[in-house]
Amino acid sequence: MSFQIPCPAEPGIPLSEVDTPALLLDLDAFESNLRRMDESLAGRNLRVRPHAKSHKCPEIALRQMAHGAIGVCCQKVTEAEAMVAGGIPDVMVSNQVVGARKIERLVTLAQRARVSVLADDRNNVAELDAAAARKGIKLNVLIEVDVGANRCGVSPGEPARALAAAIATSPHLHFRGIHAYQGAAQHVRSADERRALIGRAIQMVRETVALLGESGIECEIITGAGTGTYPLEAGSGVYNEIQPGSYIFMDADYAKNVDEDGKPVHTFSHSLFIWASVMSHVKPGRAIVDAGLKALSVDSGMPLVAESGAEYLGASDEHGVLRVADALQFPPGRKLRLIPGHCDPTVNLYDWIVGYRNDTVEAVWPISARGALY
Amino acid sequence: MSFQIPCPAEPGIPLSEVDTPALLLDLDAFESNLRRMDESLAGRNLRVRPHAKSHKCPEIALRQMAHGAIGVCCQKVTEAEAMVAGGIPDVMVSNQVVGARKIERLVTLAQRARVSVLADDRNNVAELDAAAARKGIKLNVLIEVDVGANRCGVSPGEPARALAAAIATSPHLHFRGIHAYQGAAQHVRSADERRALIGRAIQMVRETVALLGESGIECEIITGAGTGTYPLEAGSGVYNEIQPGSYIFMDADYAKNVDEDGKPVHTFSHSLFIWASVMSHVKPGRAIVDAGLKALSVDSGMPLVAESGAEYLGASDEHGVLRVADALQFPPGRKLRLIPGHCDPTVNLYDWIVGYRNDTVEAVWPISARGALY
Repeated sequence: MSFQIPCPAEPGIPLSEVDTPALLLDLDAFESNLRRMDESLAGRNLRVRPHAKSHKCPEIALRQMAHGAIGVCCQKVTEAEAMVAGGIPDVMVSNQVVGARKIERLVTLAQRARVSVLADDRNNVAELDAAAARKGIKLNVLIEVDVGANRCGVSPGEPARALAAAIATSPHLHFRGIHAYQGAAQHVRSADERRALIGRAIQMVRETVALLGESGIECEIITGAGTGTYPLEAGSGVYNEIQPGSYIFMDADYAKNVDEDGKPVHTFSHSLFIWASVMSHVKPGRAIVDAGLKALSVDSGMPLVAESGAEYLGASDEHGVLRVADALQFPPGRKLRLIPGHCDPTVNLYDWIVGYRNDTVEAVWPISARGALY
Repeated sequence: MSFQIPCPAEPGIPLSEVDTPALLLDLDAFESNLRRMDESLAGRNLRVRPHAKSHKCPEIALRQMAHGAIGVCCQKVTEAEAMVAGGIPDVMVSNQVVGARKIERLVTLAQRARVSVLADDRNNVAELDAAAARKGIKLNVLIEVDVGANRCGVSPGEPARALAAAIATSPHLHFRGIHAYQGAAQHVRSADERRALIGRAIQMVRETVALLGESGIECEIITGAGTGTYPLEAGSGVYNEIQPGSYIFMDADYAKNVDEDGKPVHTFSHSLFIWASVMSHVKPGRAIVDAGLKALSVDSGMPLVAESGAEYLGASDEHGVLRVADALQFPPGRKLRLIPGHCDPTVNLYDWIVGYRNDTVEAVWPISARGALY
């Protein structure tokens, strides 16, 4: 029963020999994205804590830290455990941690790494405090404030102040600040709409920080922002930490955001691909590839085909149907690159990411937090 | 870097203590589904080879074999490897296996288990023959015939005969028969339409079998059928093997198929659930659960909520939004069961399946072929 999923490639082999479907990382594009993030923040006094939920890969997180990141964000305690195991010393679980098993893991992890977590509920704060007390630690906690995403978080103003006060007066918790992520704005296509939504979020955060200050509660960290909006938060003078994730990869959906002139807003490049093979006999106008619903997430639409002459029409469990201009160009065994519609849930389907440069495999990294659901 | 995803439960603990999100198997419903399949085929002279792509779990496959299954189908070579490692002696890869790495794994596996595979392309047949020759084995091959799904497979009639002849005359291949799966009919809602589609498929298979017979090529195995249509193939007098998969679990989508009277066609019960927790503070009319796109596949629609008073509206990466009649009934920490819209890609997100009975965990089985993409 000790079956292990095999690795699709070894360093040094040509890309053409990598087994399919595989998750590919174009290392030139990836490294260029790391540099472009640095350049876009030049001169700002701002901490960057990239979101590791996008890549779930400590090797990528270490490269982000080499570019100045102070640590990573994670969405799950087990994701944070995987990052700490992979050498990341500072992890913010940018999510509520609810339930006895999860809280126990969280405070255990906090004994051996710098860990912070969000809260939006009084009872949960009490549970975190009790668990931290049992370990004899002081746990770092931020309040999550709902600034328009209408998902988790307390409302700005008095509800935020009351929760912050509860944390600040808990003997085993250390109140660190405010998490205000406007997730609903990240994929809004129009620059004006994104600016308006983030403008309102910034105003809510500013007022809440002021209100907490009146109660003597200092916000050391004010964090939020994703790849779709981070220049706005970074320039706000309010946020002092940002947490973009997708910029390293870019996906087909993010690439649709436009600027004031209707041009693509991002200078980031697609670096993440699914390597797929045509697997069935030649038919007029179509080709079947071996990457379906178990190899890519279609929640944000079908993947794009990076090579010309083909369009991905639909996915079943293990198959993808391409419309092709010339079926003879797509015989069985032909390999091609797909650009995922939505990177994060696609990465979560793979155990390995294959880094390549100039059509040669350079590195194969484990996606250690793949399936880290708890 | 040796991080392992932890197990969400241990046998003997109450369901309420199982960590979330987790994949739950209601063992009473699962065992009832196994029995109902037996009953629905009573008196038929038919082999059952359930599809393991649904569960990817050798422990489940062993229980299907205890109910008379002759082996399993798999979609991937690595899925087949996981099944053989878990004690399943007979595996049909009901798919094309294309590419040197995959073919090498296939013939290696065929040295230690009874393995068969499909083909729909002459060049692929030559590659399979060459690989089998290198191992000194005779590989079992069936032709895939396209009987209306319009995906993989050769056309019925002469193209099928020509490919079968190529296999039958390959020195290291053993021609076994025809695979004719009408996948497009499985989720057609109306009984009349399903009957018409499968009727046409049966006729195509019958004619092709006759044509091969005229060339002296015997079809020992004629296989196909899924949970949505298997009574039709089973009663055809043409198919002698069926390969249903989803019947053990049932998903929200299959449950929509109706019979001639417009009633739900299946007597199978939902046995597969996602165990999720409410994770955020109480809000009017909504609750946020910890099962999003990384915990369930939404390609066939949102999951249903098994408990009353809530509806799953939408998923983001790690969150699900429920509309609830009374938010006070869904405080943080409340756990509930979701019925996946589509079982197969949902199961593929989990490392473990938690079997329970009477609200107590009875077994935790590894989903050994989770992520077996190659």
